[in-house]
Amino acid sequence: MIHPVLLCGGSGTRLWPLSRQSYPKQFARLTGNESLFQGSARRLSGAGFVAPLVVTGDPFRFIVTEQLAQVGMAPQGILIEPEGRNTAPAVLAAALWLARRDAAALMLIAPSDHVIPDDTAFRAAVAAAVPQAEAGDLVTFGIAPTRPEIGYGYLELAAGAQADAASPQPLARFVEKPNAARAEEMLEAGHYLWNAGIFLCTAEAIVAAYKTYAPEMLEAVAASVEDAETDLGFTRLAAEPWARAENTSIDFAIMEKAGNLAVMPYAAGWSDLGGWDAVWLESGPDAAGNVCSEHATAIACEDTLLRSESPDLELVGIGLRDVIAIAMNDAVLVAHKSEAQRVKEAVSALKARGASQAVQLPRDYRPWGWYESLALGARFQVKRIVVNPGASLSLQSHHHRSEHWVVVEGTARVTVDGEVSLLGENQSVYIPLGAVHRMENPGKLPMVLIEVQTGSYLGEDDIIRYEDVYARS
Amino acid sequence: MIHPVLLCGGSGTRLWPLSRQSYPKQFARLTGNESLFQGSARRLSGAGFVAPLVVTGDPFRFIVTEQLAQVGMAPQGILIEPEGRNTAPAVLAAALWLARRDAAALMLIAPSDHVIPDDTAFRAAVAAAVPQAEAGDLVTFGIAPTRPEIGYGYLELAAGAQADAASPQPLARFVEKPNAARAEEMLEAGHYLWNAGIFLCTAEAIVAAYKTYAPEMLEAVAASVEDAETDLGFTRLAAEPWARAENTSIDFAIMEKAGNLAVMPYAAGWSDLGGWDAVWLESGPDAAGNVCSEHATAIACEDTLLRSESPDLELVGIGLRDVIAIAMNDAVLVAHKSEAQRVKEAVSALKARGASQAVQLPRDYRPWGWYESLALGARFQVKRIVVNPGASLSLQSHHHRSEHWVVVEGTARVTVDGEVSLLGENQSVYIPLGAVHRMENPGKLPMVLIEVQTGSYLGEDDIIRYEDVYARS
Repeated sequence: MIHPVLLCGGSGTRLWPLSRQSYPKQFARLTGNESLFQGSARRLSGAGFVAPLVVTGDPFRFIVTEQLAQVGMAPQGILIEPEGRNTAPAVLAAALWLARRDAAALMLIAPSDHVIPDDTAFRAAVAAAVPQAEAGDLVTFGIAPTRPEIGYGYLELAAGAQADAASPQPLARFVEKPNAARAEEMLEAGHYLWNAGIFLCTAEAIVAAYKTYAPEMLEAVAASVEDAETDLGFTRLAAEPWARAENTSIDFAIMEKAGNLAVMPYAAGWSDLGGWDAVWLESGPDAAGNVCSEHATAIACEDTLLRSESPDLELVGIGLRDVIAIAMNDAVLVAHKSEAQRVKEAVSALKARGASQAVQLPRDYRPWGWYESLALGARFQVKRIVVNPGASLSLQSHHHRSEHWVVVEGTARVTVDGEVSLLGENQSVYIPLGAVHRMENPGKLPMVLIEVQTGSYLGEDDIIRYEDVYARS
Repeated sequence: MIHPVLLCGGSGTRLWPLSRQSYPKQFARLTGNESLFQGSARRLSGAGFVAPLVVTGDPFRFIVTEQLAQVGMAPQGILIEPEGRNTAPAVLAAALWLARRDAAALMLIAPSDHVIPDDTAFRAAVAAAVPQAEAGDLVTFGIAPTRPEIGYGYLELAAGAQADAASPQPLARFVEKPNAARAEEMLEAGHYLWNAGIFLCTAEAIVAAYKTYAPEMLEAVAASVEDAETDLGFTRLAAEPWARAENTSIDFAIMEKAGNLAVMPYAAGWSDLGGWDAVWLESGPDAAGNVCSEHATAIACEDTLLRSESPDLELVGIGLRDVIAIAMNDAVLVAHKSEAQRVKEAVSALKARGASQAVQLPRDYRPWGWYESLALGARFQVKRIVVNPGASLSLQSHHHRSEHWVVVEGTARVTVDGEVSLLGENQSVYIPLGAVHRMENPGKLPMVLIEVQTGSYLGEDDIIRYEDVYARS
């Protein structure tokens, strides 16, 4: 049985505005009806796999549980990194957590923000790598290159190895990201594969490698796992020792040094979706080279990606060539494909002038569901609030605002200053300034409520929490 | 004294998504803080001008009064065309309406969707044309061409006329829109000016010209003016005779035939903003050729127009050249500048699939103010409703929905089944299904109200009107 270890602590901005710090790429629906994270979890499920172990950051913990629930899955554990310190400490924490249960546990370590279209081929490759991993080697997956890419590291196969073999091959060395000329040479040479950052090994084998090549990190992360606290099913790694672990990648800390490495070649399609140009390519352009989402219309365009991310938003492109246009309710990106990697500059520019769009989505995910602001005036705000079945907001009060709640879907149980009432569709309640109140969804369907806030200050931080089932008070 | 006659019945789509059938270009803020219509009205105001006479369509009548009020103006009259039949009947209706008061009235007839940046120069040109118009000639304004434009008609000056004179010059003939080669020739020849569709003449002179060249139209439009009904200060031209007036332009019906024509040359800047490329040009591109609105960011762009039409919407352009990007809350246009004239195809495509964005703005202007939909679910809708000071919605009821109203700014007087109450900020009222209700703003400031509708059918046509101060019941 294989334990999928899904790394999803990252918060890249190369796919802004869809990917934001508050809701990064792995949770977005980029190439289909499921998020990259959901696709990764589903790919590594079924026969031969146990439930995944997820390593993520605190802001994403409820997104992880919600998205797994949506595809009918539950994790065997969710490790919360006190802060992102790259892949080396994250993988080690997962290995130590698994090793406490079964030192021989087979781990398939994978980023959760990649696209691998052929699930069957990928599962077959994983299965083919199992014997070598069980024998104690660290098996890394090498992707057959399709272009002279300068954005990836490469794996050089040992002399005599077969780049298209259906079994793990011996590795000569890791190769850093090349320049264009070197990338061309490697593509022609035929015995270089892309390093996809996917590994299969036993927990004890990888822990042993850390013991040899990164003993200080092992000490720090072991202490962090040892002192971890369990909270609503999440495992919160201890912050103090975690901060001592070097902020580095597993490639650099372990893989480039270890001797017991092998490469499993993989040629059935893979992308890290490292930019909008890659999303265009992976989305299957039509004969004219265009990719259009629903509510997007291309007129006389070529090799262009047009995505509307909202049913309320019509996007039209006319006479465009090699353009990426991503339209969301609060932000629109239009970029020439060759410059799509400069999206980070845009995010920096927006950050510099304090635009919330740089880091936040309009929809804010919470443990109990989500909300979005529909209208914001000087002294009022209107929100749509969606509460999951069985979920409950904290018992709270506000100093500076009163609230009107109107239930428009489902049933709400509302507590105001100790008085409990049930509200159905089309019923409303008023929460005076200072009143201690709580909103719950006792039903079996999502509850949707329109909240009209009035007051002199409407910030999210005007909240006093008295009780919270999500341990936020 | 000059009577400005502002033609604003048009509903072009070349500037979609800003200009839509429900709220066309002349009412949009395209190049500054006032709309083109407001700019046109203000330009023809002050010393030497009386209040404007406006010719428009029924859907725009309250936009006209509201926009004039915003710039502190009131019209001397608003003629409502039963249907748009091009400029010939519209100009004639205005001339007949004025001639009944003063046959010698001087009319300055102008489209209301043009940009003329130099008000002083334009007023001076109008003043210079007055003597010739008073003498009974039809003076047309000819714009000094700055490029071999194929989108305009031209005015050919008579031999010996001066194309840069400060007084009206004799005209040889009207020239239809040329091909590119002919446009180049005319630009080089130096005695051709663009036909801007702006005319100065007396009411009796232009009526006399219709009598000679379009007697049937004169009969029809005279009957339409004769039988017009006055309604809340609007003059509704009679529909039956109006329908008999030929649907044609004043150029074709009169100007190309009349003998008493003169041309007033004008060289201080003019544009009809006939497309987004023209808006880019008239908006004053920076050194890199870019024009960026508030909330728009250009990174490595050249000769590009980036407009965000909402403070909630960040637009970013990266690596673009000769691109137009217009971002609105419900629609986004991205077009290569050379293809900007194909926006009409986009509007047709959206119409074909029933997208309301083809014709309607999210904000709906009404006689009493405006509203917009903030959220629409299967069985609920949330609206922001803004009621002008002193204004009143109709007394009405609905068959299929109940409503919650929460006042968030100003004061509302609310009538529900005969009971009247005053609601201040942060107060709410419930309107049960079937209740006869009315909303008024008795105050001196705009009143803003959040309406949450619940019901099985939420269309605007579920309304029974009992009384309406705007004569809509």
